Amino acid sequence: MLKLYGFSSSNYYNAPKLALLEKGVPFQEVVSYTGVGPKYRPEYLDKSPLGKVPCLETPEGFISESRAILEYIERAYPTPTLLPGSPFDVGKVQELSQFIELYFELVARRLIPNLLGGMEPDPTVLQEVEAALTRAAQALPKLSRFENFAYGDQFTLADIAAILNLPIVRRVSKRYFGKDLLSDVPGLDAYHARMEERPHVKTIRADAAADQPGFMAHLKKLYGF
Amino acid sequence: MLKLYGFSSSNYYNAPKLALLEKGVPFQEVVSYTGVGPKYRPEYLDKSPLGKVPCLETPEGFISESRAILEYIERAYPTPTLLPGSPFDVGKVQELSQFIELYFELVARRLIPNLLGGMEPDPTVLQEVEAALTRAAQALPKLSRFENFAYGDQFTLADIAAILNLPIVRRVSKRYFGKDLLSDVPGLDAYHARMEERPHVKTIRADAAADQPGFMAHLKKLYGF
Repeated sequence: MLKLYGFSSSNYYNAPKLALLEKGVPFQEVVSYTGVGPKYRPEYLDKSPLGKVPCLETPEGFISESRAILEYIERAYPTPTLLPGSPFDVGKVQELSQFIELYFELVARRLIPNLLGGMEPDPTVLQEVEAALTRAAQALPKLSRFENFAYGDQFTLADIAAILNLPIVRRVSKRYFGKDLLSDVPGLDAYHARMEERPHVKTIRADAAADQPGFMAHLKKLYGF
Repeated sequence: MLKLYGFSSSNYYNAPKLALLEKGVPFQEVVSYTGVGPKYRPEYLDKSPLGKVPCLETPEGFISESRAILEYIERAYPTPTLLPGSPFDVGKVQELSQFIELYFELVARRLIPNLLGGMEPDPTVLQEVEAALTRAAQALPKLSRFENFAYGDQFTLADIAAILNLPIVRRVSKRYFGKDLLSDVPGLDAYHARMEERPHVKTIRADAAADQPGFMAHLKKLYGF
């Protein structure tokens, strides 16, 4: 059986986990905060080169990096598919996924240490993050109206990106900018409400909540907060 | 005919360009440093939401984001393929590509403004970049021996990532750390020498050289150097 290494507070981990759940592929979760004991198990470092999580153990060997794991899962278990049928539509799903990861998640991520640790952010960083998120929020409707799914009429990798990454952007935004910069994106509030009703999304959220003590203990060990 | 918007000094642009060249797909290049006149042509902003390059114009519409464009190209023009045959091998090719982009290119990129503009780098940044590149260089042999291609016995997306991203890492490394941190990776020097002999790689290099004056003029306008 597939083994997925990582932890449920991590969206890099949750992306392949949600894909496996949505596809109904059986897999075993192996809780690991920093690779599979990267410092202690050299045979794992031979597979996940920097000892990072997530990492998927397949019958043929290990694959690390979230996007690479997603690509393996989609090809090894093509039904139900998480991609549309035409090359153009696949490109657009990947464009939307990339857009969410690069212009929302990576940007908001700059404030996550502050959010978790309670330290006041650098005012320059605050300004840069607010400006970048505002620009991205204004551009997002050009890629999706969020009328049904994030793209087209089926659940895709773009939904996985939106479901996992956008809520943290909302949290950062409400905490530091006094308003949810995403609430003006047409259709997005209703879209998220619909997605949160999906059984596997509920599983992801429940597992993330259950993981919080372990994750915070790990952060405390690393950073002292 | 496909139209590729962008400029030849950009590796984000050169990735889909090299894929199209290797596949023998006809396309037209439209030189653009900041999107297709993003400030002036609102119809382009409707397609590439933040006005970024590269952007591919297909018969069905525009796709932006380098990785999304690559995925479209691979699916729309599957022969010759730039991916191996099995899901596991595709996952490994993507893992290697991601590894190169995340742990080499994104890291070295922190010093590229200094390299281009001649400003002295922050000593802390220098230390962080050297440590991260050293770690990545030590881990790289776990993903590839570079005996023939970057992965397996065919030219893949991992070669595109290696050919485009690793030379700039070498330049940064020689300039700021007094040595080429990649020269100890077994097989890599010979691999790069082989790849540079490929006709389409020569085209990419020649076009990048020809684009330098335009690119530097663009940088000067933006940053004053």
